Amino acid sequence: MAEFNSEPLILAAQEFAKLPGIGMKTAQRLAYFILNSSEKEVEDFAQGLIKARKSMRICKSCMNICSSDICPICEDEKRNKKLICVVESPKDVSAIERSGGFDGVYHVLHGLLSPINGIGPDKLKIRELMQRLTDCDEVIMATSPTVEGEATAAYLSKLIKPFEIRVTRLAYGLPAGASLEYADDVTLLKALQNRSEL
Amino acid sequence: MAEFNSEPLILAAQEFAKLPGIGMKTAQRLAYFILNSSEKEVEDFAQGLIKARKSMRICKSCMNICSSDICPICEDEKRNKKLICVVESPKDVSAIERSGGFDGVYHVLHGLLSPINGIGPDKLKIRELMQRLTDCDEVIMATSPTVEGEATAAYLSKLIKPFEIRVTRLAYGLPAGASLEYADDVTLLKALQNRSEL
Repeated sequence: MAEFNSEPLILAAQEFAKLPGIGMKTAQRLAYFILNSSEKEVEDFAQGLIKARKSMRICKSCMNICSSDICPICEDEKRNKKLICVVESPKDVSAIERSGGFDGVYHVLHGLLSPINGIGPDKLKIRELMQRLTDCDEVIMATSPTVEGEATAAYLSKLIKPFEIRVTRLAYGLPAGASLEYADDVTLLKALQNRSEL
Repeated sequence: MAEFNSEPLILAAQEFAKLPGIGMKTAQRLAYFILNSSEKEVEDFAQGLIKARKSMRICKSCMNICSSDICPICEDEKRNKKLICVVESPKDVSAIERSGGFDGVYHVLHGLLSPINGIGPDKLKIRELMQRLTDCDEVIMATSPTVEGEATAAYLSKLIKPFEIRVTRLAYGLPAGASLEYADDVTLLKALQNRSEL
């Protein structure tokens, strides 16, 4: 971004470059789009984001993002409140809801343990989870099968075990629709170990 | 984006999905980033874009985006005003400036002729270009080597020829640093036809 670039283009591109996964080339492309839009359109876009952020609340029960004190899932009387599914982020709640196979409630940690990045247990919504265990039958660990995800699940599992609550983990195995020959070794090994009767 | 997605997340994602090249998955990822930022940060981001758009002017001479009535390039006394380089968009001005090989001025068309998309000569800054030809020695066509770019260059060339001004075109050939075996047939053919003495 040298001097010959027009100032408004630089200003807009610098804003977009703040976003995750948006490099300088994409930022410039988006900036150019903004400058080609009418002032009204840009105002609407900007105000839309401000409004979305302002309307955001965190559910007092499950810590998910919502627009009220208690999220629609926690408020739903048909949901099994004694079955808590622990996830990393609100995106994971959406993903599991899409599967249509879960009728319990969630608990959003808002991150995973990662000592390397300085994320310890105090940075996650773990205290809030522990407070919910008084009336709970089962906690499902639904963190990603990554190093951080596994470590977080193991850590929480140890914390929860003394409460004599069932702690489970999402199954490992082949992704549906995937071709066996492209499955990695670890996935294939887990799929073999966890094979079920037909 | 079904009902179980939190409302603020949908609101923010819908805004990002308006941007070109941003699909629903990326929009959700960016929306999540916005909701994880402080209200102050979101406000700054949004106001930054509004400010960039508001500060935008179009140079009265070359039609490039700038923040004053006349852009810095057109104002520069060291630039050869009799040599006009015609480009599609402000991004192309940045690209050519980066090459460091041009000391003339530009004319930004703000698009290319594309009858299929309903973009005729009246949609481009062609009238403004014609007004600049009274005191001009050479016009360089620097549109992209695409169907639209070639058609626009050919159209403008016909318009300009009666003024008895030299009309040139950027050279075709192998891109610097590229491997010959990966060059496409048309590029290779053009590189052969336009070969120069060593």
